[in-house]
Amino acid sequence: MSAPTDSSVAPQGRPFSVLRSPFSGGEAATLHAFILAGGRGERFWPISTFNRPKQFCTLFGGKPLIAQAVDRLAGLVPQTNIRIITSADLVPATRDALPGLPAANVIGEPIGRDTAAAVALACGIVAREDPQGVALILPADPLIADEAAFRDALALAAAQAAREPVIATVGIAPTYPATGYGYIECADESAPGVRRVRRFVEKPDLATAERYLATGAFVWNAGIFVWRADTMAAAFRAHAPQWLPLIENPTDLETLYPTLPKLSVDYAIMEKSDNLVVVRGDFGWDDVGTLPALARQFPADPQGNVAIAPTYALDAAGNIVAAEGDPRATALLGVSGLIVVHTPKATLVCTQDAAQDLKRLVATLPPDLR
Amino acid sequence: MSAPTDSSVAPQGRPFSVLRSPFSGGEAATLHAFILAGGRGERFWPISTFNRPKQFCTLFGGKPLIAQAVDRLAGLVPQTNIRIITSADLVPATRDALPGLPAANVIGEPIGRDTAAAVALACGIVAREDPQGVALILPADPLIADEAAFRDALALAAAQAAREPVIATVGIAPTYPATGYGYIECADESAPGVRRVRRFVEKPDLATAERYLATGAFVWNAGIFVWRADTMAAAFRAHAPQWLPLIENPTDLETLYPTLPKLSVDYAIMEKSDNLVVVRGDFGWDDVGTLPALARQFPADPQGNVAIAPTYALDAAGNIVAAEGDPRATALLGVSGLIVVHTPKATLVCTQDAAQDLKRLVATLPPDLR
Repeated sequence: MSAPTDSSVAPQGRPFSVLRSPFSGGEAATLHAFILAGGRGERFWPISTFNRPKQFCTLFGGKPLIAQAVDRLAGLVPQTNIRIITSADLVPATRDALPGLPAANVIGEPIGRDTAAAVALACGIVAREDPQGVALILPADPLIADEAAFRDALALAAAQAAREPVIATVGIAPTYPATGYGYIECADESAPGVRRVRRFVEKPDLATAERYLATGAFVWNAGIFVWRADTMAAAFRAHAPQWLPLIENPTDLETLYPTLPKLSVDYAIMEKSDNLVVVRGDFGWDDVGTLPALARQFPADPQGNVAIAPTYALDAAGNIVAAEGDPRATALLGVSGLIVVHTPKATLVCTQDAAQDLKRLVATLPPDLR
Repeated sequence: MSAPTDSSVAPQGRPFSVLRSPFSGGEAATLHAFILAGGRGERFWPISTFNRPKQFCTLFGGKPLIAQAVDRLAGLVPQTNIRIITSADLVPATRDALPGLPAANVIGEPIGRDTAAAVALACGIVAREDPQGVALILPADPLIADEAAFRDALALAAAQAAREPVIATVGIAPTYPATGYGYIECADESAPGVRRVRRFVEKPDLATAERYLATGAFVWNAGIFVWRADTMAAAFRAHAPQWLPLIENPTDLETLYPTLPKLSVDYAIMEKSDNLVVVRGDFGWDDVGTLPALARQFPADPQGNVAIAPTYALDAAGNIVAAEGDPRATALLGVSGLIVVHTPKATLVCTQDAAQDLKRLVATLPPDLR
């Protein structure tokens, strides 16, 4: 993988900086980040709840995931240009979690309309504020081990998107034949480290995923998109004109959001576009979609128990114990394959097999516990 | 079963009252209760701990077991005559749990010497204070459903012990072939509702227990003994003279306790005595020795889950959830046969089969959690 850099560190005399746009006579093209934090995250109940979704959880490294998402852009995107797009009801909690960010940078959507609306909103904001700027669309909640490599990949994608009218994406180098992610098939290289996109593909079955992995040409779609406002506006104009009013008027969300269909930007734009490029990202990405996935980030004891909370185990194997905001000790005796999760209000005890039914369990709970 | 009564309720014109001793010219023979509260109760960890044993737990009906044990003597034993014999370190907590009892009635043993020492101590106190009085020795922590029937049985035993030099016991009518209790074999009736004891027998194996149950002649030894001080002093003199100094001087525990062997009164006295009588007790007795035993006191849901704490279960069967001092909700998903117990400091998750190894688990815990 090539190693581009941001302007603050320019080793090896590389000829371009992401902050230098080919469209602006050599001036710096500013980056604008939009972190999409719309999820509700029942798969992490009870640590995540309806009113305190995953992005606020600190289980994953001390700071809330949303704060980690902001922090890891340091040096690449000016703090004033980092915006969070979230549900209106989560705006106060999001501002609390991000005291360094201007309050106005936390934008509340009046109703959830999936990522197409959020990307159109971002496009409208950048088009109005900084027509030559480049926008980064980022999800709020993956864990990223090598943050410098992550910034390098974004910088490379941003440089490419600044240079030509492409929608760039950073795809994740797959580490196993995952069936839980969409994939992007890469074609030929259009610039060093940048390849054209052949196609976006849906979540595959295992056999297909194994084939994808074997070819070496596929990466995971991580929902990371990088583009100039004019490029994205053109894409909406061509493929999804229903969103154009929002791009033209990105402040009147109360009026416009209810008119929009609930659709992902993948469906609305990406699968229909032919000007996509992809940078392969290999920086220890994990979307920690489930607690067993999270547990893989932590060391296990010789019996395979993973303790993300004080735990004492006897005759117990292959269990996961986690807690947030609750210092209690957990003692396991004679049990195996369990997930035990504590918060101050609730404890979940489930088998790892049953974890996929968590949403069904949460639906049975009284509202104050969900 | 016969239905004797205490003096406050004397139906059916029965000719005697427990409070009327044949040895005192028709005056009332006062009862003195000694509740033995020496256990440490690791089998209920984390609800019971070394410094807060089972008798302080409120899981079993709102009030601490020790307070229930005192309360259920109301009308039978004057409050001033109810004493608790416990470990010296537990005296303050015991006094706190029993604000209605004179502080001096909570007696701390400097070291644990099992029930023989406690019974000798009780014998010495009654001999000194009220030579014609009758003592009741009672364990601190069984649950008793029908407290009036319990008092009736004690009253009948007390009347018999007041009337003649016998050690009376209240044995529990067995409800299943328990292998966890000692048994008492009953012989012929010596008075209405009172039978002579043929022998004390150790905890049997299942086949033996089934045979005991079939004969109808066996009851469980519940550690309840009723006697006049002169009767018990004579028994010690005959079978266990090493305890006589404590009977003669029941105040100098610091000096005398270290000289005594650690022995149960069953071994020291009961198994060697031939002046034992037994009253059959049928009052919903449960020593709640384990959490599964406790759970039998509570209703189960259609899937056999017993919730002694707020619980939500999906695809879960045969589990027990309990908590003390911790209002958290527990959600069970896809699990079966588990025990989940919460306190503010700790949560236990174990299989019901493994519950018997709890002591081994507790031994691995840091001191502040034991």
